[in-house]
Amino acid sequence: MAPRKKDDILNATLELLAEKGYEGLTVEGVAERSGVNKTTIYRWWPSKAALLGAALIEARALDLESPDTGSLRGDLQVLIEEMARLLTAPPTCDIAVAALGAAAGNPELAEATRAFFADRYAREAPVFERARARGEIAEDVDPMLIVDLLAGAVWLRVVLRGLPLDESFTGEAVRVVLGGVAALPGAGRG
Amino acid sequence: MAPRKKDDILNATLELLAEKGYEGLTVEGVAERSGVNKTTIYRWWPSKAALLGAALIEARALDLESPDTGSLRGDLQVLIEEMARLLTAPPTCDIAVAALGAAAGNPELAEATRAFFADRYAREAPVFERARARGEIAEDVDPMLIVDLLAGAVWLRVVLRGLPLDESFTGEAVRVVLGGVAALPGAGRG
Repeated sequence: MAPRKKDDILNATLELLAEKGYEGLTVEGVAERSGVNKTTIYRWWPSKAALLGAALIEARALDLESPDTGSLRGDLQVLIEEMARLLTAPPTCDIAVAALGAAAGNPELAEATRAFFADRYAREAPVFERARARGEIAEDVDPMLIVDLLAGAVWLRVVLRGLPLDESFTGEAVRVVLGGVAALPGAGRG
Repeated sequence: MAPRKKDDILNATLELLAEKGYEGLTVEGVAERSGVNKTTIYRWWPSKAALLGAALIEARALDLESPDTGSLRGDLQVLIEEMARLLTAPPTCDIAVAALGAAAGNPELAEATRAFFADRYAREAPVFERARARGEIAEDVDPMLIVDLLAGAVWLRVVLRGLPLDESFTGEAVRVVLGGVAALPGAGRG
């Protein structure tokens, strides 16, 4: 399949998910929106869940550039701001909520969201390898835990609590993960 | 309504949600399981979403005791272990995933899950008031951010990534939130 055509199909999939939710997403609708024959789409992706799984990982809307600002602090700031943008701005906030909701009752789709998070972590990992090489990060820290804390905080505040992110949220989250919250005598705050 | 009867109704609601998902949850099913007349249930809760909203906050299965171990570290450890237990052990893990999935496409239910998280935060807040009074927590830290980081990390690792929590996860998360990940010269790790 021509890369351009594939892009059109995957973008149409995410657009329709954002507009109509998972229930309203159909391969027929994707065919119509993208101008690609339904049979062709089914030849590449045997189900709606498979199509959405591919779109989550490959579509440009959810693309993630691995930052390389020269410091762990700078890279974490870029990563969390990108997560905050994805989860607060349309259409990606609607895509994320609809995909998550649908995955809750659908094992094939749950597998697709797990693959999505694994793919993102693979792109985030170089940030931590460079930070370790620069001696910025304690040896015994699991880098995935750093992503879990930062991204999890954005998910919880925005998606589960339904609260707005105020301006200082991302900076504060990075500051806490780097330096901690403890006000102990002699404990640096980073 | 007698407290005992109310408990039976709310417990039946969560049981059925865990077993059948939100689609399969019906007021009729709750009436049958709890032995309370359907009309009586509707008199108290006008919709399935309202019933589930009440169950999320009031049913014993999701109850949260605010810990008071004498230290911020101890209290955070109890809180995160409780979150980990809720999100990994049946039936509460099924309840959480089903409620979250259903809330994604249902504004009334989304309001109920927001109320659930607000209620939990109200119960967690005394931990941070006591920590502040003991001088354990930096003055300028938003306590809700601490919960967002810890609880968000568990949600992300378990529910979104679908990965197991290894034994060290909760302790490591508390350690990072207290002391940070930075390996800077002179920066204490708490």
